Amino acid sequence: MNYFISDYSLGAHPKVMQALIDTNLEHTDGYGLDRFTEECGEMIKKMIGKPEAKVYFMHSGTAANTITCCAPLKPYEGVIAPRTGHVFVHETGSVELNGHRTFAAPTEDGKLTPEGIEDIMALYEDEHTVIPRLAYITHPTENGGVYTKAELKALRECCDKHDLYLFMDGARLGTALMWPGNDLSIQDIADLVDAFYIGGTKLGALYGEAVVLLNDDFDDHFKFRMKRNCGLMGKARALAVQMQALLEDETGGYDITKSLYARLAKHENDMAIKLREAVLAKGCELWIPHQTNQLFIILPNEKIKELEKDFLFYTWCAYDEGRSVIRLVTNWNTSEDDLKLIIDAL
Amino acid sequence: MNYFISDYSLGAHPKVMQALIDTNLEHTDGYGLDRFTEECGEMIKKMIGKPEAKVYFMHSGTAANTITCCAPLKPYEGVIAPRTGHVFVHETGSVELNGHRTFAAPTEDGKLTPEGIEDIMALYEDEHTVIPRLAYITHPTENGGVYTKAELKALRECCDKHDLYLFMDGARLGTALMWPGNDLSIQDIADLVDAFYIGGTKLGALYGEAVVLLNDDFDDHFKFRMKRNCGLMGKARALAVQMQALLEDETGGYDITKSLYARLAKHENDMAIKLREAVLAKGCELWIPHQTNQLFIILPNEKIKELEKDFLFYTWCAYDEGRSVIRLVTNWNTSEDDLKLIIDAL
Amino acid sequence: MNYFISDYSLGAHPKVMQALIDTNLEHTDGYGLDRFTEECGEMIKKMIGKPEAKVYFMHSGTAANTITCCAPLKPYEGVIAPRTGHVFVHETGSVELNGHRTFAAPTEDGKLTPEGIEDIMALYEDEHTVIPRLAYITHPTENGGVYTKAELKALRECCDKHDLYLFMDGARLGTALMWPGNDLSIQDIADLVDAFYIGGTKLGALYGEAVVLLNDDFDDHFKFRMKRNCGLMGKARALAVQMQALLEDETGGYDITKSLYARLAKHENDMAIKLREAVLAKGCELWIPHQTNQLFIILPNEKIKELEKDFLFYTWCAYDEGRSVIRLVTNWNTSEDDLKLIIDAL
Amino acid sequence: MNYFISDYSLGAHPKVMQALIDTNLEHTDGYGLDRFTEECGEMIKKMIGKPEAKVYFMHSGTAANTITCCAPLKPYEGVIAPRTGHVFVHETGSVELNGHRTFAAPTEDGKLTPEGIEDIMALYEDEHTVIPRLAYITHPTENGGVYTKAELKALRECCDKHDLYLFMDGARLGTALMWPGNDLSIQDIADLVDAFYIGGTKLGALYGEAVVLLNDDFDDHFKFRMKRNCGLMGKARALAVQMQALLEDETGGYDITKSLYARLAKHENDMAIKLREAVLAKGCELWIPHQTNQLFIILPNEKIKELEKDFLFYTWCAYDEGRSVIRLVTNWNTSEDDLKLIIDAL
Repeated sequence: MNYFISDYSLGAHPKVMQALIDTNLEHTDGYGLDRFTEECGEMIKKMIGKPEAKVYFMHSGTAANTITCCAPLKPYEGVIAPRTGHVFVHETGSVELNGHRTFAAPTEDGKLTPEGIEDIMALYEDEHTVIPRLAYITHPTENGGVYTKAELKALRECCDKHDLYLFMDGARLGTALMWPGNDLSIQDIADLVDAFYIGGTKLGALYGEAVVLLNDDFDDHFKFRMKRNCGLMGKARALAVQMQALLEDETGGYDITKSLYARLAKHENDMAIKLREAVLAKGCELWIPHQTNQLFIILPNEKIKELEKDFLFYTWCAYDEGRSVIRLVTNWNTSEDDLKLIIDAL
Repeated sequence: MNYFISDYSLGAHPKVMQALIDTNLEHTDGYGLDRFTEECGEMIKKMIGKPEAKVYFMHSGTAANTITCCAPLKPYEGVIAPRTGHVFVHETGSVELNGHRTFAAPTEDGKLTPEGIEDIMALYEDEHTVIPRLAYITHPTENGGVYTKAELKALRECCDKHDLYLFMDGARLGTALMWPGNDLSIQDIADLVDAFYIGGTKLGALYGEAVVLLNDDFDDHFKFRMKRNCGLMGKARALAVQMQALLEDETGGYDITKSLYARLAKHENDMAIKLREAVLAKGCELWIPHQTNQLFIILPNEKIKELEKDFLFYTWCAYDEGRSVIRLVTNWNTSEDDLKLIIDAL
Repeated sequence: MNYFISDYSLGAHPKVMQALIDTNLEHTDGYGLDRFTEECGEMIKKMIGKPEAKVYFMHSGTAANTITCCAPLKPYEGVIAPRTGHVFVHETGSVELNGHRTFAAPTEDGKLTPEGIEDIMALYEDEHTVIPRLAYITHPTENGGVYTKAELKALRECCDKHDLYLFMDGARLGTALMWPGNDLSIQDIADLVDAFYIGGTKLGALYGEAVVLLNDDFDDHFKFRMKRNCGLMGKARALAVQMQALLEDETGGYDITKSLYARLAKHENDMAIKLREAVLAKGCELWIPHQTNQLFIILPNEKIKELEKDFLFYTWCAYDEGRSVIRLVTNWNTSEDDLKLIIDAL
Repeated sequence: MNYFISDYSLGAHPKVMQALIDTNLEHTDGYGLDRFTEECGEMIKKMIGKPEAKVYFMHSGTAANTITCCAPLKPYEGVIAPRTGHVFVHETGSVELNGHRTFAAPTEDGKLTPEGIEDIMALYEDEHTVIPRLAYITHPTENGGVYTKAELKALRECCDKHDLYLFMDGARLGTALMWPGNDLSIQDIADLVDAFYIGGTKLGALYGEAVVLLNDDFDDHFKFRMKRNCGLMGKARALAVQMQALLEDETGGYDITKSLYARLAKHENDMAIKLREAVLAKGCELWIPHQTNQLFIILPNEKIKELEKDFLFYTWCAYDEGRSVIRLVTNWNTSEDDLKLIIDAL
């Protein structure tokens, strides 16, 4: 069986595993009170140029999203996400577990837009309505789409207008940062959002996400909130050890685009581009324009059934009577041979 | 000031007040363990022809909606409401307080449709998604619209297909039952939904809603759920006393359409029809087709400002550059004189 | 059947009912945006000598307790109540519905003490523990006990030491204010607590509690919190109308001890004192020293069974092998004849 | 600095790390849909002799406790834990986040007893009270105490009497299983409780707990509940890989006492016994009788300050005016040299 199903189909990059082994027998205190957590946090703050930021490490994207998005909210406030957003469609109501509503804004391509925000803000009236208070975006989106700097600035302005916090889910942030033509640096992001996270689990770590808080409203007893939502690990140091190995600038500076993380992201993007070109060359049709490491291809249903014998992938949605959309995901270890197998089979 | 703002602008019908006074000094146990609660519950069960139903009385529509809708849900399940539905737009997230999501289904006129349900069901996949599990409708809708029997049957079928409970918010149920041409009796409703409530506060009571449970899945430790959500009153008997006075068949049988409740509803409808005719005669334009006791009229913004000097009403939404929609609500006590005042002013 | 079971066994005082009737046909806006709510709030602020206080009206003690206690809390904070406190034992976890813990402090007689608070504070360490943040007391207690000024001051000091809010549940506040020897005026209370409520439902109203907020930390979007917890009534004016009738100084000033509320409370206390004297004269034993309108009497179990034929009351707990404790409650309408009946039967 | 502060002060046992490396590049599906999860679950079911059990893997003890304890509960039900229980004192209200109450039962030594359960059950009355529905115990307790078979049977009987589920937190289960004189096998545990977990993080894993459900009431959409509480990992396979390496019977059968897990537990116990003997030989006093890998020693406060220069440990509580209790924890890697250092310093 060949795996194009998700970013989760294999373990961590060897350098990450090695870092875990190298630090394995060093004694530290637990729950994030260790030198690795401290050091990796400092490194990330330098990378984004924000010494006053706060950095916390968590074990999963759902934890990073839920705990961070809910942190600045009052009970009667809610989250705006595009209808395709992970917090709305793939976290089984973890925001609602915390008592907050998730509003689904209309979206064409998976991006949240000022128009989408306005659509939800129109619902707000007074004490009878939940107050939308935070806008959630994913970069790249669940469809692989990369926000431009202009788009993010427009969202920021719209958020300011409506007194909304802006949070970015960066589960696959590296692939956006390294996408050809991307004009949004991690420093830009840190300038424009109130909080975001750099996702490791989907990009080379065994597990680990680095949450970055830029607005102090989020940093209220944050570890209490983590613990309560099952987001505080005993051996938390292992999160920082992994993120350090992934994110450190391999040239000795503080440029995330010179990290293993960036290299792996670029590799995923490159593989996806190659796959796309081959797919198009074969006459297949794409469902949506391709960006980053996810490719959405329209295929006849029989063809899909046939592929399922040898490949594990996700059938995303029906397209028309006889065709559906499949999603192929490249990962940090996808090889030319892997590509050849699927291309030949298509 | 003249009031067309809501169904809440004055107290209870004199017969209701009299019933409270007549029973005021009778001793009973508290919290619904009294003969009035028992007797009114029995009467309602006879009226709907369902001896096995369960009846509970609450003090507000939000309590009736929240507690009843959440009763059969597991933590990972949610409620589908039309985007205009009261639980979505006017209850400040009381469903979310209970940990459940409210999904907003698309709607054209305030009615939930099978297509609206399908739109939300399309979101459901697996353990990563909230399971939509209950469909919430309001009858008449927040826009005054009356469901037909065919529409309700279609919803029931769609709910059965998707294993959804069907709940009806009857905050203004009487006005639907008494609307000219209405083909949906209270017995039909009891046949087609899993639970509903007969709203008193908006139709002649000082406060009081009668929740009717037809599916035993809802009747699990219901009073525990009421208490926990601030829905169990100490002197609960007063709820039943009011509902008895409103709902009893004044001819001695068990026909709700022969009750004070029905008479008041018919009065509200009649007044609204008269108002509509006068409004149309004056050349005003309606925003949506009129049903029941709410009228939505498009007026120039200056006209609205002028009206606000003498009338209290709700400006519903902007219509275009220079015009907005106002809502006029008739109540159980609206008189021809009241109508004349607003008609002359329009 | 004769009722000594609770303060809920009959309706409202005739003056309260009359006030409802007198105002019944006056039009106002809903949801507390009416002149009665405004006026009664102003009156209460004058009575307590705190023009900057905020007053809100609710329909039940559970609503008043839950919504007020949770208002200033962060998700990771909790409530300290004596183990006998209403929020711990008789509200079915409504604080927990809002995500907060209720800690049960040890108590000997139903009063919270600095020692009880210290017992709970000892649990607090760091991000792994819920932070106790509000101390809940009932005055008089669930056992009828009246706090002295010295006791309340000691609690206030202990709360200040531990950065705790202090909230007083005044479900039967009148009986404490009017208890012989009471040295705690409503102004003292307003000076010493952060929030409290004046309970009407248990003392002459059909329903209605007046919540008084003295610390602005509680007054954050309070009506949003009320709505979300089913605590905002449509015809909210009726709450204020009742409280006005009960609480107004009948001599024209702003002294709550000259109100109907005070008279009814004094009557309840007087009847309870008479009952106590008669009970003691008959050789019965009290379970705890008597204060206010609740009497706890130790009786042989057979005697209790016998009494149950003609009287409705609450058997509070077992006392020893053959005896149990019963609770007798006097209400605003308890007469000498009622007392005679139970005394003769004892 | 020498670490006796917790079971978390270093990484995973080398065999565990090796297993992660050995499986690192094997492709599998995510979220627990992989062969490792399947295989390790099957192995555990054989070890406990319950083919019908369900096994789920999570990343932390708080997740295992919270998600499992809340799974069978209705909203109005709560958890009984001894006052020292982890869910009460060290999980920041994660049970309350799920809307349930945690009741703190009195305990002398950290064990829950039938008397402790009765104390809480006495609170339960009717719809006004939270229903205690699950008894939570930790084995060994937070103080290191090991339940005997007779004690666990007595708890089971008490739970049956009161219709309570019985859940065992096995964060350090191995040390109880391997404690000299322990008479409670893992099969006994599986016979007597409704659910329990085998803790890895505190005993040789980098992270990982194996939750075992023996009562189907717990297994309702369990992965939905995990996801919603941030307890479902993307690369969930790594949990099973670690637990497999730890728990497998190294002689080829299905006896957990022949696993690495058991060996590490025995080592921890042995080191703790040696430490205890040395401590006693030095004339130090123990706070509570010693069992398993935690030692509680009474020391003068100045001595504690002195020790803090070279050792990291936890000061548990004050003992008297001049003395406090410190906790020393041995871990899977504690060596004779480590012991010598602390013993010499004492």
